[in-house]
Amino acid sequence: MPPTANKALDGHKLLILLGTIFQPEWIAELKELFSGLEIVTVEGCIWNTPAFDQKFPEREWKDVTILVTGSALPAAHIAPKLEYVQIQSAGANHILQNPLFSDTDIALCTASGVHGPQIAEWVVTTFLAFQHQIPQYIDFQRQKTWHKLDDPVYDAVGRRVGILGYGAVGRQIARVLKALGMDIYACNLHLRATPESRKDETYTPAGLGDPKGIFPSKWFSAEDTEGLHEFLSSGLDLLVITIPLTERTRGIISRTELALLAEQKTFVSNIGRGEVIITDDLIHALENGIIRGAALDVTDPEPLPDGHPLWSTKNLFISPHVSGNSITYARRVFEVLKYNLVRMSEGKELTNKVDRTKGY
Amino acid sequence: MPPTANKALDGHKLLILLGTIFQPEWIAELKELFSGLEIVTVEGCIWNTPAFDQKFPEREWKDVTILVTGSALPAAHIAPKLEYVQIQSAGANHILQNPLFSDTDIALCTASGVHGPQIAEWVVTTFLAFQHQIPQYIDFQRQKTWHKLDDPVYDAVGRRVGILGYGAVGRQIARVLKALGMDIYACNLHLRATPESRKDETYTPAGLGDPKGIFPSKWFSAEDTEGLHEFLSSGLDLLVITIPLTERTRGIISRTELALLAEQKTFVSNIGRGEVIITDDLIHALENGIIRGAALDVTDPEPLPDGHPLWSTKNLFISPHVSGNSITYARRVFEVLKYNLVRMSEGKELTNKVDRTKGY
Repeated sequence: MPPTANKALDGHKLLILLGTIFQPEWIAELKELFSGLEIVTVEGCIWNTPAFDQKFPEREWKDVTILVTGSALPAAHIAPKLEYVQIQSAGANHILQNPLFSDTDIALCTASGVHGPQIAEWVVTTFLAFQHQIPQYIDFQRQKTWHKLDDPVYDAVGRRVGILGYGAVGRQIARVLKALGMDIYACNLHLRATPESRKDETYTPAGLGDPKGIFPSKWFSAEDTEGLHEFLSSGLDLLVITIPLTERTRGIISRTELALLAEQKTFVSNIGRGEVIITDDLIHALENGIIRGAALDVTDPEPLPDGHPLWSTKNLFISPHVSGNSITYARRVFEVLKYNLVRMSEGKELTNKVDRTKGY
Repeated sequence: MPPTANKALDGHKLLILLGTIFQPEWIAELKELFSGLEIVTVEGCIWNTPAFDQKFPEREWKDVTILVTGSALPAAHIAPKLEYVQIQSAGANHILQNPLFSDTDIALCTASGVHGPQIAEWVVTTFLAFQHQIPQYIDFQRQKTWHKLDDPVYDAVGRRVGILGYGAVGRQIARVLKALGMDIYACNLHLRATPESRKDETYTPAGLGDPKGIFPSKWFSAEDTEGLHEFLSSGLDLLVITIPLTERTRGIISRTELALLAEQKTFVSNIGRGEVIITDDLIHALENGIIRGAALDVTDPEPLPDGHPLWSTKNLFISPHVSGNSITYARRVFEVLKYNLVRMSEGKELTNKVDRTKGY
């Protein structure tokens, strides 16, 4: 055991503010694993209300070392022993500016990887449904008539997908698209030039994703515009955007970038953040056939107001930021927590830690 | 080289009746490969018409050894040297009774494997679209409103698919569903008890399918009703039917079998032949929530008449026998032909040969 190991997690106190989504038998699993860990679950009351303070008074915070939360956070002086905060979302930009993180070195861990399977499913089904003209056949079915479309169907074999943001979600998308016979190109915000740098140790459900980074046949970097443009010009039949929202990525896909997709009339799928694409430029590209189609689970603005022009843009599918939803979501957030508690007990570095300099 | 090898295919004559779907440069590939092969392409006229007979008179048939055709077939005495007939469909039941096959041992080879990728895409997208409530979101989009559904989404990780008919198409479906994290059960019409028997040497696009039979965690046989029922009772979240239509498979899925799916409310996907399922029983199972949904690319009757009750059965998607369509279809039929000509030139057994005793 490494010197800092603490197998039973003696002296640690875990506060779970997501008690309503974790099952009691899961909490029991943790008690079984770590005999020294005190676990407190606060539920049935709202953060920062008298009811909450009554259930969990300020003195109780003094020895909390681990916190599982949505976005509610204590002031740093209230929880002086806090070491590790586990949130339930994959992105951390909504709380990264909180003084608890900007002024301390408390580990902030995301639920990255929890969404991989269901978001990959959303990407695959919306892309293939477009390719196989499923929406049109739904209409024919409603008209109760047997009618074959004349337009040819292009299957995915040998076609190329570019995945902008080859993280936990991108890697599971790659696994499925590879099985469909596609060629995978990966593009990250920083160049991953060596096999070692292409690995990803964030949480992945067993047997899924691409932790070793073996699926892409080519790697690009969107660190500068030249690299991004090289990637977008590489003959992509499908572009999947999974990058987080940062100052670098805000509006990174504009009219100039969409024009680079014109030759293949690339289908664009966005499950990152809406602000990554300039909405007006996307509407222009779709309405003018510069790209052949798109699927958006995220929009800018979001929620998309009723009647917004994006709703009726042609060859576009929109869903209301639901691709990450899954009945197994809470269980997978719990798996990340459990995985990290094991690492903590072994004195190892936590996984899914936000890099404050990168912002994700 | 084996004794019967004939590298240049000297003395062979190939008649292509599908000339309009094969590109001239593909024919050139064959000429490059086999210097002794005579190739004749007949196009622009209809089989068994004076125009056809003028372009390809009876005497031309005398030395034809290889024929590529849709369903047009000569009488056996017209083409006495015929050895190998390549058809462009995966099923052969429409021509198997032709005396050319019933009275001779001419090899009849199907285009099995040509449809694998696109049919797998159809199965995956229609299943996942149902799971992710895509049709409902298409409706919300048309209403131009941001509305999240309350029903939980069940992702595919750890769920089980049963593939009834683990042939070329079933194996590519397995590859994709495995990448999604599903557990694969296979069921064939004959038991495949040994690793050797689980292999499949039919044509598969490179890197796809499951030629070695490694994906299924369990194998079943539908040779008798008991075996079929054991398979259907094995906790399937998804049942994919890809079996050919034979006397054994006609109506093999009736009310009794659908009742076995009630516990998991299994989603049923049929891309085999419509007659495999009793239509009225399927309607009953869907309308009564015995199964939670279904996707049919084949129906009984087919074409499904306008206004037939199946069109408006709930939780059902129907497309008009188009799942096998693909722009690359003709090229893949050509790949099967090329692959078999190479095998013929090497004195090896042809692939994709119909077993006359089994009927497929």
